[in-house]
Amino acid sequence: MTTTKSSALVAEKRSVCKSVASFARPARRAATHVVNFQETGKQAASHQAATAKLLSRRGYAATDPKKPLSPFTHSVGELGPNEVDIKVTHNGLCHTDIHMAVNDWGVSAFPFVPGHEVVGIVSATGRDVTGLRAGDRVGVGWIADSCRCCSNCMRGNDNLCEKGYTGLIVMGRHGGFQETCRVNADFTHKIPDALDSASAAPLLCAGITVYAPLRAHVTRPNMHVAVMGVGGLGHLALQYARKMGCEVTAISGRPDKEKECREFGAHNFMIWNKDNAAYKGKFDIVINTASSDVSTTELMSLLKVDGSLIQVGIPGGGATMVVNLQDLVFGQKKVVGSIVGGRADMKEMLEFSAIHGVKPLVETMPLSKVNEAMQHVLSGKARYRVVLTSDWQ
Amino acid sequence: MTTTKSSALVAEKRSVCKSVASFARPARRAATHVVNFQETGKQAASHQAATAKLLSRRGYAATDPKKPLSPFTHSVGELGPNEVDIKVTHNGLCHTDIHMAVNDWGVSAFPFVPGHEVVGIVSATGRDVTGLRAGDRVGVGWIADSCRCCSNCMRGNDNLCEKGYTGLIVMGRHGGFQETCRVNADFTHKIPDALDSASAAPLLCAGITVYAPLRAHVTRPNMHVAVMGVGGLGHLALQYARKMGCEVTAISGRPDKEKECREFGAHNFMIWNKDNAAYKGKFDIVINTASSDVSTTELMSLLKVDGSLIQVGIPGGGATMVVNLQDLVFGQKKVVGSIVGGRADMKEMLEFSAIHGVKPLVETMPLSKVNEAMQHVLSGKARYRVVLTSDWQ
Repeated sequence: MTTTKSSALVAEKRSVCKSVASFARPARRAATHVVNFQETGKQAASHQAATAKLLSRRGYAATDPKKPLSPFTHSVGELGPNEVDIKVTHNGLCHTDIHMAVNDWGVSAFPFVPGHEVVGIVSATGRDVTGLRAGDRVGVGWIADSCRCCSNCMRGNDNLCEKGYTGLIVMGRHGGFQETCRVNADFTHKIPDALDSASAAPLLCAGITVYAPLRAHVTRPNMHVAVMGVGGLGHLALQYARKMGCEVTAISGRPDKEKECREFGAHNFMIWNKDNAAYKGKFDIVINTASSDVSTTELMSLLKVDGSLIQVGIPGGGATMVVNLQDLVFGQKKVVGSIVGGRADMKEMLEFSAIHGVKPLVETMPLSKVNEAMQHVLSGKARYRVVLTSDWQ
Repeated sequence: MTTTKSSALVAEKRSVCKSVASFARPARRAATHVVNFQETGKQAASHQAATAKLLSRRGYAATDPKKPLSPFTHSVGELGPNEVDIKVTHNGLCHTDIHMAVNDWGVSAFPFVPGHEVVGIVSATGRDVTGLRAGDRVGVGWIADSCRCCSNCMRGNDNLCEKGYTGLIVMGRHGGFQETCRVNADFTHKIPDALDSASAAPLLCAGITVYAPLRAHVTRPNMHVAVMGVGGLGHLALQYARKMGCEVTAISGRPDKEKECREFGAHNFMIWNKDNAAYKGKFDIVINTASSDVSTTELMSLLKVDGSLIQVGIPGGGATMVVNLQDLVFGQKKVVGSIVGGRADMKEMLEFSAIHGVKPLVETMPLSKVNEAMQHVLSGKARYRVVLTSDWQ
């Protein structure tokens, strides 16, 4: 196997949800608690009772970047007016959880509970929550909150919050690898009945990460779309592009993936670094889901004039991409980034997935085996997404 | 003066119309001539007479990349059915003419007559020409022909011709530095009455080069647009962006340009490498008209989330740009190229310019002094576009 093939192969082995944007904003609910505890004596007594009931939460936490996750107990206070508690049933295991657990990006605060593709059942709602009630099946993704008042938030594009959105598991916040997870109701999404919970979980990060840019750049039927890298994100991108009416080509370094790619919706299967010449100038869109260092020049050469290369992750090979200017300018091409998606897109993505039957191919493992599951993902053997099922005793 | 400032200054001194795309297609009219000369004896005699009349054409040609332009005579045959002859009155002098004359890009065929911002009066029309007649005031830009049958051509986007458009002065074709220039009628644009000829000429390449990408990316009123580099292209981009309803910022390394920039329409004036910090994250669009090697990372840092960096030229410093992936992906930013514009955009640009009073600031010089004019452009002293007026004796 050549080095380049090996590189492309690694690209597919890693899932690429690099959904980290801003880590600056503190959680809102902390402030809310302070206000609540300063209320009248009667209310305060009631709050203290409620707090006592809810005090202890079990989860699996990253406590040190060099250690595996370990059982972890933490305390929560009273449920805020706009919060909900979710009894977690499923968690997609995204590579970002691993990046965060080992502090790959230097933005983790320990200890924290990973998990940001969370599905479960609402067990309690805050006093101001009107859109959800106990028993609802819901999901939570990468974004836990945003400013709500910038232009982007007001338009439902909270992934572009001008003040920086709040990430579910950054700044020491606790995500889905818990028995019960507390989140803001506004960033809690109802799961359509047609989607089973194990399928829904990976859509909440991997799904939205590829759905949102395809939604933005697929502007007409029959656009020719190539998906570079067929892993957790890529196998969903193939399905979305096909169901959006595109002509779809899977690009992989592994010939043995062809059959599956065609089942995911690919009309064509291109072997990276073997078939490139035959596909030069063929695509309106190339979405790069590979996290290895794939040549940008080579990817761009696959684009038609006026075509777009969509980048949804940061390749392992470096923090920059080198763009050939002659191709960019004379070919009027575009290189665009995309970061998860806002609430409006999330709602639409879930509905689209339910209506059109888009589902990840998942392997389930019990949450208690989360460390083995992480190793499985790191080994590159996951096909195509591991989902952790809750098995609390 | 620091090196960096000097670099930014050079950026503005060069005009950046790097409008070269494909050079592969031979001219159509050659084939037409062959067919015509195989017609009936009577027609052939008539054609020969016509050919004899039109045989000699005077111009200024590049004959050798190391020599100045020189007086040049060449022959043309019969006017093709869809061609027109234009008695040239004005030529914008674009830096691309100089690049082509010295074979900077290795695509020049000598001898050839430069000039691709051509304005004049139609003096003759081919037998199938219906949209133009003798006496019409018209203009010709960088694109002389295209395939007419690909999807992009059919939509009027012949700058994106899938088979590669025909450039007016590439492959040894002769452009506007002639007494009379022969062109395809379909790529000959009527000049609106409200535009004087000296003002219209630079719009045909510099104008369309910035109008087309602004048209594509200004998708709502009040977008915050920055124009990097205030030269031949930049001073038009400021005007278009302002007239499109944007909030406009000029970026220049030269503080003495502020007054003029504000007259062109800039609300704000930012001094490159001095005011950068104050403008971080402020713009929806940055259009880079500088041809020097400006830091892409620095330009992208000026964008809001979801913002676009538009590149219309190839900086002198290199054939690549280095894009910071974290900024691209997490900021959901875009780096897009743009190459002149199609016929539909050209027509619209001329009308927009006429209605909204967009005009280049020009210095006129006689065509017979074309070599001095080129030196003037190279010296960086042109403010902002040199227009050559025909002075044939």
